[in-house]
Amino acid sequence: MSGFHVERLAVIGVGLIGGSLARALRAAGAVDHVTGIGRNVDHLARARELGVVDATATSIAEGVRDADVVAVCVPMGAYDGVFEALAGAVRPDALMTDAGSTKQQALTAARRHLDADQLARFVPAHPVAGAERSGVEASCADLFADHWCVLTPTDATDEAVTERVAAMWEATGARVTRMEAADHDAFLAAVSHLPHLAAYALVNAVRKQGDEGHDPFRFAAGGFRDFTRIASSSPVMWRDIALANREALLRQLELYQTELNALKMALENRDGDALLGAFTAAKVARDDWLMRRSQGE
Amino acid sequence: MSGFHVERLAVIGVGLIGGSLARALRAAGAVDHVTGIGRNVDHLARARELGVVDATATSIAEGVRDADVVAVCVPMGAYDGVFEALAGAVRPDALMTDAGSTKQQALTAARRHLDADQLARFVPAHPVAGAERSGVEASCADLFADHWCVLTPTDATDEAVTERVAAMWEATGARVTRMEAADHDAFLAAVSHLPHLAAYALVNAVRKQGDEGHDPFRFAAGGFRDFTRIASSSPVMWRDIALANREALLRQLELYQTELNALKMALENRDGDALLGAFTAAKVARDDWLMRRSQGE
Repeated sequence: MSGFHVERLAVIGVGLIGGSLARALRAAGAVDHVTGIGRNVDHLARARELGVVDATATSIAEGVRDADVVAVCVPMGAYDGVFEALAGAVRPDALMTDAGSTKQQALTAARRHLDADQLARFVPAHPVAGAERSGVEASCADLFADHWCVLTPTDATDEAVTERVAAMWEATGARVTRMEAADHDAFLAAVSHLPHLAAYALVNAVRKQGDEGHDPFRFAAGGFRDFTRIASSSPVMWRDIALANREALLRQLELYQTELNALKMALENRDGDALLGAFTAAKVARDDWLMRRSQGE
Repeated sequence: MSGFHVERLAVIGVGLIGGSLARALRAAGAVDHVTGIGRNVDHLARARELGVVDATATSIAEGVRDADVVAVCVPMGAYDGVFEALAGAVRPDALMTDAGSTKQQALTAARRHLDADQLARFVPAHPVAGAERSGVEASCADLFADHWCVLTPTDATDEAVTERVAAMWEATGARVTRMEAADHDAFLAAVSHLPHLAAYALVNAVRKQGDEGHDPFRFAAGGFRDFTRIASSSPVMWRDIALANREALLRQLELYQTELNALKMALENRDGDALLGAFTAAKVARDDWLMRRSQGE
């Protein structure tokens, strides 16, 4: 264990991620008291019933007042309002982190509202643990276990604070690593954001062929189900992520379109060798990745 | 049960599909004797050890001589040679079917080699049961259970023969339906062949970003794993399928590229409403499909 311990944690946004963070830190004995902050009193009551939080608040100012650590676990679209409220309310010695999936936008919102001292105590984080479920009911103590958690501190971030926040994420079972926010965003655009757009686009391409009274999904089987699983993700969340990581995602879309065009060209030219080469390279790369992944590298 | 029964079945190609067909018909008590035909004597010996077949043959002429039903279960790339051999060897009263995933090409190979009487007794079939595994070891008696099996008989096909072959596939537990070969190919291009190309292309787009000493797959998680699962499918098989269903697949690629371009445009224009609309329509269509599917419609 990391030995991380904090008395009072405030979680802004008690959904899948915020709820799982609270549960994980509780399960690790790393926190004494958790305040859940959100707008929806029914959700907050549910979080309390489930034992995920000890206290609740509908106002950020009220909820973070005593907090040693504040974790921002809201959708990217809500960052501006949250950091504005935080700036006027957070304790001067509190640590701040978040769990958003695009780090440049998280930093932009933080820079817009926090002062220099506050900014030094904010360590952007992204626990890379995807799940199509949402809400506090789906939260669990091991959501982050053995998953990467990427921290993207900047030159403005206090190193001691970064180490404390790293210890907190390690206490959830996550494997913590650090990189530049821009690098993080490019990597995630490739392996997470682009696949979501690709899956949504594919379902739409099929869906629109259903006009003539037949069900175009009729013969869809397991491959289609798995390929499109992420197209059942929250449209609002993914709209926000796509806009938040717009430039990196546009670049990835272009790279993807280049690959699709190459396959299309090979098909037009009946170039079986080109198709075989592309399919084989992809299979080898994916199988290698799965192997490394299963070995915990 | 369908009441289908046959004394002697010959399966050309005893892999996942051929092996599962033999197992399913045995399990249903629908066949007395199965001959497995293939080129690889080790594979054939394994099929016999596993009790999938009773006898084996490396020559089609020898293997199909006594067969009441011949099932062609080889990759699409091998159809020409198989039908050429079949034409000179099959019993005049035998039924023929296949399990290939592109039916226009199956018909093309059949028409090229079979005479009119033989052609009347060939009922193209496609059991829509995807699996990334391959080989007789992976075969099982319930591979086709509750999956669609699409028959694509033509005006040249004998109706009584079609009914017998339908009964055979029903005996495997499959849900049998009929349609034009071209319609089948278009449907399958959309929900099966296109997703494979899309997954291969995406893995390649990511793979090529690994040049600078880093692992571009490092932060890939469950969503990526599922999205790309089909990119671990057999490159040879998918090259053959892509070429066999070339025109329908090119059309689907274009429709897919249109959807991707629409998302790209929305992203370029920061058009959150357009993104949300597209994501929502896809999610609704997919969730509806899953619901219908779980209800067995």
